[in-house]
Amino acid sequence: MKKVSLKDIATAAGVSTALVSYVLTNKEKEARIGEEMAKKIREIARQLNYQPNHIARSLKSGRSFTIGLIVADISNPFFGNIARTIEDEAKKNNYTVIFGSSDENVDKSQDLIHVLLNRQVDGLIITPTEGSEQQLLQLQSQHVPFVLIDRYFPEIAANHITVNNQEAAFQAVSHLVKAGRKRIGMVAYKTTLQHISERIQGYQAALQQHELPAPASLLKRARYSHLKTDIETAIDGLLKGKHPADALFFATNSLAIEGLKYINTLGIHIPNDLAVITFDEAEALDLFYAPVTFVKQPILDMGKAAVRVLLDQIKDNTTAVSNICIDTTLIVRKSCGSQ
Amino acid sequence: MKKVSLKDIATAAGVSTALVSYVLTNKEKEARIGEEMAKKIREIARQLNYQPNHIARSLKSGRSFTIGLIVADISNPFFGNIARTIEDEAKKNNYTVIFGSSDENVDKSQDLIHVLLNRQVDGLIITPTEGSEQQLLQLQSQHVPFVLIDRYFPEIAANHITVNNQEAAFQAVSHLVKAGRKRIGMVAYKTTLQHISERIQGYQAALQQHELPAPASLLKRARYSHLKTDIETAIDGLLKGKHPADALFFATNSLAIEGLKYINTLGIHIPNDLAVITFDEAEALDLFYAPVTFVKQPILDMGKAAVRVLLDQIKDNTTAVSNICIDTTLIVRKSCGSQ
Repeated sequence: MKKVSLKDIATAAGVSTALVSYVLTNKEKEARIGEEMAKKIREIARQLNYQPNHIARSLKSGRSFTIGLIVADISNPFFGNIARTIEDEAKKNNYTVIFGSSDENVDKSQDLIHVLLNRQVDGLIITPTEGSEQQLLQLQSQHVPFVLIDRYFPEIAANHITVNNQEAAFQAVSHLVKAGRKRIGMVAYKTTLQHISERIQGYQAALQQHELPAPASLLKRARYSHLKTDIETAIDGLLKGKHPADALFFATNSLAIEGLKYINTLGIHIPNDLAVITFDEAEALDLFYAPVTFVKQPILDMGKAAVRVLLDQIKDNTTAVSNICIDTTLIVRKSCGSQ
Repeated sequence: MKKVSLKDIATAAGVSTALVSYVLTNKEKEARIGEEMAKKIREIARQLNYQPNHIARSLKSGRSFTIGLIVADISNPFFGNIARTIEDEAKKNNYTVIFGSSDENVDKSQDLIHVLLNRQVDGLIITPTEGSEQQLLQLQSQHVPFVLIDRYFPEIAANHITVNNQEAAFQAVSHLVKAGRKRIGMVAYKTTLQHISERIQGYQAALQQHELPAPASLLKRARYSHLKTDIETAIDGLLKGKHPADALFFATNSLAIEGLKYINTLGIHIPNDLAVITFDEAEALDLFYAPVTFVKQPILDMGKAAVRVLLDQIKDNTTAVSNICIDTTLIVRKSCGSQ
């Protein structure tokens, strides 16, 4: 491909190559170039379809203007939406995004971090997997800027963007109590990750506050790697015993969708037989015959905050840690019955 | 961050820097270095957490080992799944993926192409937007390798990966006829894009073949930018007249999900009052009270083919054009009633 050079643009504009360079690196003010001339040079560059050599420029500035994004799975709409928000926000700051999916697997996460650092990203936005603490400490010891989103590790002082998980879970379960439900079960992931633990704590605190039964048998956990079978076992345990649950609180949208698929096969009617609330939104939950009440996460604000905190750290080379917690909203729909 | 150099590794291993370089660029065979020594050098590099300078290496090889991916919207599960497949396939070939969402907007598409070329991607995988023909011709004149996926332009000789849209639509509509439906409507996007035109042609051919009424009023089109309102108008036109449709064929999953949300509010029962088939899968369509019959696109095979064709073109610098068409599968579920 024949490359258009600064000299080509300079010739076409009838000015010096240095002048073109000043304008195209946004330094026209320093060089005191008139607005009209700057505009003319930019227009010619556009017409000639000039492509600055980004790699050469990166070597000079020491920056790649690229963010690495590690999510659990880009094909899950929750992470797809986070990725979309980060993409839009990065673009506003002239950054592009390289992404990868960890599948909640600690080895894949390590591998992705290596790949992205090899690509000289200026920093990382990560939804960390269970057991990845050492990887984050390693990043810190290498002074790589990063921000955690959705999850975090309390024992690691690192930038993170989260929501009020415990309070949101407390409110969701309290809503089920107000709707007259007496035996409220919860389905969570089998993980030590903080955001899931906080949602469980909120559920337990609400049961205690309202003096409802809270046997261990009402709290079920499914493995990410065995979602379908574990969910079926969990639902059977909650709904088929002597004292079936009359309400369920799901810790994430994937759990709710898989759970409702199975509940459909059992001929159980929502909300008559069973009330349902979940964390996270999903089109599947909108289209469900009893649209599902959910804890809406502020994905747009989370993505914006993550990019802002990361770019601040890249620019200022600061070591100050930002912990940003954003409030969720409970969106009440038909799946809980009358209130 | 203090960088580990080849010299550091050489000192630790007690060998020359040249030997380390040979091993870490996988050229140990050329340099006739024993397997054991190569293994030792790699282990030391790992222990020291050596990060090769990818940018410097790229300048030397002239390649960035990065693919640019432009989809309509990464938060739409169809494109999220395509992105995931391309990510996995690229990774197997030591490539990473930079992505961007065009929102079906021709200016955003042009902007993204510029950004990705500035990042020195080795090639592009694109779901092209309506009206982006000039952008593709420009890429060809610049000798930038690219592959189109999901859509293509018949008048542009470019690599593309598609499915048998017309035949699949014909089969889907024929299935509705066999299920006893007599007045079959279609909801498509208002676009000139080839894949949608082919699905419409398949629908029309099936009606003609089975000698069913095919007035223009049974074919409705919604704008991507005004999806909700246009879908409501379309469904009203199809279901509220003197001769309401008894079956609907949706051209994509987004159209089906938005359509079914509105149909739910009208108290129309599926499949008793109305049979439904759509192109594409979605969790929302699995969880729907009458799981929706759909044309399953071979996303995994499409993504693999796109990466393979692109990397072949990058490596061989060939100008031969690959057009790959992969068959879809009709997955029959409850939304069409008895057959």
